[in-house]
Amino acid sequence: MEYVLAQVGIAVFAMSGVLSATRQRLDIFSIVVVGLLTAVGGGTLRDVILDVPVFWLVDLTTFWVAMAASFTTFIGIRFILKLPPRLLSYLDAMGVALFSIQAIDQTLALGYPAAVAVLMGLMTSIAGGIVRDVVTNRPTLLLSREFYATPILLGGILYVLLIQLLPYPVIRLMAMGAIFAMRAIAIRWQLCLPLRLTLKIDFGEENH
Amino acid sequence: MEYVLAQVGIAVFAMSGVLSATRQRLDIFSIVVVGLLTAVGGGTLRDVILDVPVFWLVDLTTFWVAMAASFTTFIGIRFILKLPPRLLSYLDAMGVALFSIQAIDQTLALGYPAAVAVLMGLMTSIAGGIVRDVVTNRPTLLLSREFYATPILLGGILYVLLIQLLPYPVIRLMAMGAIFAMRAIAIRWQLCLPLRLTLKIDFGEENH
Amino acid sequence: MEYVLAQVGIAVFAMSGVLSATRQRLDIFSIVVVGLLTAVGGGTLRDVILDVPVFWLVDLTTFWVAMAASFTTFIGIRFILKLPPRLLSYLDAMGVALFSIQAIDQTLALGYPAAVAVLMGLMTSIAGGIVRDVVTNRPTLLLSREFYATPILLGGILYVLLIQLLPYPVIRLMAMGAIFAMRAIAIRWQLCLPLRLTLKIDFGEENH
Repeated sequence: MEYVLAQVGIAVFAMSGVLSATRQRLDIFSIVVVGLLTAVGGGTLRDVILDVPVFWLVDLTTFWVAMAASFTTFIGIRFILKLPPRLLSYLDAMGVALFSIQAIDQTLALGYPAAVAVLMGLMTSIAGGIVRDVVTNRPTLLLSREFYATPILLGGILYVLLIQLLPYPVIRLMAMGAIFAMRAIAIRWQLCLPLRLTLKIDFGEENH
Repeated sequence: MEYVLAQVGIAVFAMSGVLSATRQRLDIFSIVVVGLLTAVGGGTLRDVILDVPVFWLVDLTTFWVAMAASFTTFIGIRFILKLPPRLLSYLDAMGVALFSIQAIDQTLALGYPAAVAVLMGLMTSIAGGIVRDVVTNRPTLLLSREFYATPILLGGILYVLLIQLLPYPVIRLMAMGAIFAMRAIAIRWQLCLPLRLTLKIDFGEENH
Repeated sequence: MEYVLAQVGIAVFAMSGVLSATRQRLDIFSIVVVGLLTAVGGGTLRDVILDVPVFWLVDLTTFWVAMAASFTTFIGIRFILKLPPRLLSYLDAMGVALFSIQAIDQTLALGYPAAVAVLMGLMTSIAGGIVRDVVTNRPTLLLSREFYATPILLGGILYVLLIQLLPYPVIRLMAMGAIFAMRAIAIRWQLCLPLRLTLKIDFGEENH
């Protein structure tokens, strides 16, 4: 079940990469490369930093799912654009919820403390999207005020706090559900963080 | 022979980095850094993902060639700009043909399936150029419609399909030749992919 | 003593990330992510390339210092903006001097030659800042003519040249002092490299 959800998540990430790449006129091969980068970028970075084998080299299904999803999105773009845009956002929220909790599990299993695990969960979920934005020359999602990283962080913190207190499958589902619910609410009502939790300063001169 | 060609390829990659960096006013050290990044970026990423020792730490010749090529290009820029621009493009095509096939060999030798090997071949040839474009603030080559990634992919697919059928040195030379020939034709007649293999969509609102 | 200085350096890098991120309106979580990336990005890249355990996974103090510095900067931004801007630059210069020499030591200890060590020293000091600039959509520091990379390179070269001739602690302090002094002079008098060590070319057409 979870394995199937993970593949759906990968496919949705690849789709989001393809959709993002189509804002500029790209050819099919560049588009597929952007789709792959988006789908596996975050997990690749996590595995390289943790020095474990890269996940899509271990289980090639992920690789093929990302590839197939990218091609299918390119070919079936007319159909996909007819889907309600929020459907993709909800699927993306599901992928994000799943991947961040899985990354936390993996990091904890390697013996790292909870704070590192939460960070790895965040990185796994968002790094692919950041790479996608960088190579397609768009402002990265870090620059958006959308309520995107916050649910992942809050859900991850909830998870590592309660993991000892509640039975493993319960807290796991609860944390994933919490991340998904926060994202879904943000998507439905287009929420973003209150202004007082943001910061913008005008500098007169450049500094580092 | 192939070793010499590989060093020429590295030198040309470094040169292309330096030439790309000179569009903005950079100092000599930044220019050399961009040259090095371009020359060894793709292979470094490949080795890190495959978890093998990084190639330019194993054989330092590559490192020195990239360094020397960057410095020489900076110093001899007046001479290099007098060369026909296509000469550099042809040398780049040669490097790309060589490095992608070498990366495919290396990935296959580690036991990975053909599709992963083709992807690694592509990544090795283009990641350095993408990093170059990102750090010098230019649209990445993924955003160009030039016939650049496609020859590498087609040549790589040809190679892994026929590698069992033909003697190793023959198919190897043939695949490299095919990539070089496709790139050379694209350079000579400034080809790009037909519009129906590209995609551009105008979105009303932002989404991920 | 050096350990404390290293933590101060990490904190200043995180601060510089946060200050850089506040040019656009970011929320607190994105800002902390940018702070962390800036603080540990360079060292992470170095460790991944050298294939040694990533430093902030080995000693979590660094991770916490970077995290705390990012949060504190966000919360205490009014106070920090009242500090003389050059104070931050001087602290950054200190961090850069320390981290580059430490990276050189680490690379030499792994048996790599001096040139690779100097490059690793440079990479460790500047990669975090480059990643910071890329994700916040600003021109990277490679594109600035400021006298930033040059002191690190010159100090690193001085260090590896004299490391055999002088007692270790003496040459170490001397090299760090030289890097810091060059940066401090550049900050104080806003020096940049002479124009004849820079290069800018107008190209009529695109090439790679």
